Amino acid sequence: MAKSPEDRHPVKAFGWAATDPSGDLSPFKFSRRETGDEDVRFKVLYCWICHTDLHSIKNDWGNSTYPLLPGHEIVGEVTEVGGKVTKVKVGDKVGVGGLVGTCHSCENCLNDLEIYCPKLILTYNSIHTDGTITYGGYSDHMVANQRYIVRFPDNLRLAAGAPLLCAGITVYSPLKYFGLAEAGKHVGVVGLGGLGHVAVKFAKAFGAKVIVISTSPSKMKEALEHLGADSFLASRDPQQMQAAMGTLDGIIDTVSAVHPLLPLLSLLKSNGKLIMVGAPEKPLELPIFPLLMGRKTVAGSMGGGMKETQEMIDFAAKHNITADIEVISMDYVNTAMERLDKADVRYRFVIDIGNTLAATKP
Amino acid sequence: MAKSPEDRHPVKAFGWAATDPSGDLSPFKFSRRETGDEDVRFKVLYCWICHTDLHSIKNDWGNSTYPLLPGHEIVGEVTEVGGKVTKVKVGDKVGVGGLVGTCHSCENCLNDLEIYCPKLILTYNSIHTDGTITYGGYSDHMVANQRYIVRFPDNLRLAAGAPLLCAGITVYSPLKYFGLAEAGKHVGVVGLGGLGHVAVKFAKAFGAKVIVISTSPSKMKEALEHLGADSFLASRDPQQMQAAMGTLDGIIDTVSAVHPLLPLLSLLKSNGKLIMVGAPEKPLELPIFPLLMGRKTVAGSMGGGMKETQEMIDFAAKHNITADIEVISMDYVNTAMERLDKADVRYRFVIDIGNTLAATKP
Repeated sequence: MAKSPEDRHPVKAFGWAATDPSGDLSPFKFSRRETGDEDVRFKVLYCWICHTDLHSIKNDWGNSTYPLLPGHEIVGEVTEVGGKVTKVKVGDKVGVGGLVGTCHSCENCLNDLEIYCPKLILTYNSIHTDGTITYGGYSDHMVANQRYIVRFPDNLRLAAGAPLLCAGITVYSPLKYFGLAEAGKHVGVVGLGGLGHVAVKFAKAFGAKVIVISTSPSKMKEALEHLGADSFLASRDPQQMQAAMGTLDGIIDTVSAVHPLLPLLSLLKSNGKLIMVGAPEKPLELPIFPLLMGRKTVAGSMGGGMKETQEMIDFAAKHNITADIEVISMDYVNTAMERLDKADVRYRFVIDIGNTLAATKP
Repeated sequence: MAKSPEDRHPVKAFGWAATDPSGDLSPFKFSRRETGDEDVRFKVLYCWICHTDLHSIKNDWGNSTYPLLPGHEIVGEVTEVGGKVTKVKVGDKVGVGGLVGTCHSCENCLNDLEIYCPKLILTYNSIHTDGTITYGGYSDHMVANQRYIVRFPDNLRLAAGAPLLCAGITVYSPLKYFGLAEAGKHVGVVGLGGLGHVAVKFAKAFGAKVIVISTSPSKMKEALEHLGADSFLASRDPQQMQAAMGTLDGIIDTVSAVHPLLPLLSLLKSNGKLIMVGAPEKPLELPIFPLLMGRKTVAGSMGGGMKETQEMIDFAAKHNITADIEVISMDYVNTAMERLDKADVRYRFVIDIGNTLAATKP
């Protein structure tokens, strides 16, 4: 008979999990493996609530296994390291993002692009090499191979830095890869949510001129005054769109709803790149002639490798980049999910696991 | 009153033009400008029939002005040069491709990407700076600014080299720009027509491993034995497609009919690039998630600048690359158009203007 989550591994653990597609999260006792030679164990202090968590607990993508314990932007303090660990030591501040295992031998892994490894093991709702389900960061502690551990510099605020492990790398990596992380480039950011607001900050730190493109003119003040964008483009205003035609080197499109690409392609210069980091569930309409007229690109990007994630965190620490967050206690998580579903948060929730999880233990 | 095409300019000219959307071509007397300081005048020897010619004479894109004299892959022998011409001399073999004028001052022109200049003047059916309509290569002679003149090396056969001015640069430029023109790269070519067969030849000359992807298994023999492709993939065979998943660095897609992109995206490795050089009239469906899963790109490309066109012609001469053609006489052109419409040609017609046009003069 299969062992229960509580008895499967030797080390007791506690967190909050969803047990069915209602998505309601509740206290959950489980267990984690012992600290292997290459493993780092850390006490979780903060965990970001990603939109992926919301989709997963509700089984929106049809691939959820219950109990499902979400959370994949996790930061904390190292409590134990294996004998072969060289990357960090006890007491260090560290984080784990979306992945905890890859094959280490495919072309992607060898090129520091573990995120595209076909044998990727996700931080939660994935099957580990030992056959057990992975559990995420809404929990008292984590254990992971040091390859997937990111060091947090002392001056990077932990709570507001946690979201960078997902949102940060998701926008940093394509800005770099597609040649937009350069002074003087004109970069558009479509959608001002969890990803978009961080994209503005990184693009500005790279020295780009940043224009926020949004269907909501109400976001102009926020974009210009709070986030420091250089300009704002109301995408439903034909005159503004016309005036901005052919002016951008690239666009980071964070919108995951179905939306038209043609107006965005029109904003690009020759050789311009429209980079999708959101994932609309249905195919979008791609007109080909506008791509041809200017050698334009539509590309996708999904996070980055571990080496680049560390580079991104170091860059963020140097340039004082963090996410804008609302810190909540563990027992507020179900309400937070409801609010996230209505986009009622600027820009994301971070759970104060370190100070509020223990009190919810039955 | 506007002057007639015959009296508009000082130099008499003769060719074949369409006078209405029936597309029927017939003998047509017109005129061309005098040879300006920067101009090169040449006797036309051969002109390729591009699929664009067929669309244009029938006004398929709604932008045709009649009389319409097509032809934009034109080769011949220089008969006169202006006082400031340094590029060629009388007697040289030269060609003109799709463009005869640009602004010379925009970002694209300054970066040798005249083809993307917003003030582009096409070789035919376009308005020149003097306000007159441009006429193409189905004619006894051409005159063009030296910037748009391509030198033909002596060892490149003129008739079979003419198509390279359009088909050649259309596939050469994206192979180079998107990093596929390297030994060892795995390159797919979709569609084995005028563009596709030349794409196979260039990709092979660059040292790539080339796979032809086609809905018609009947093309396998041609692809492998005649064109020298390394392998053939019948795109309607699910097993073959499954086996080829994730194997290609890039694909040159020459198909201008509406077709699904998802199977092609599946063939790409991480960072793989699907490059569209055909222009389907309706938008294609672009699924975004497969783009994200591997940082894949869909891009468009439309020819190249003049500097790169010269580089391509020199490369073709060095590597003995020409198009596979059927040479026809001028009076066969209407039949050729009917056959082209049915894809009944391997792979394109070239009109022997030099030897057969004069006989059609009324």
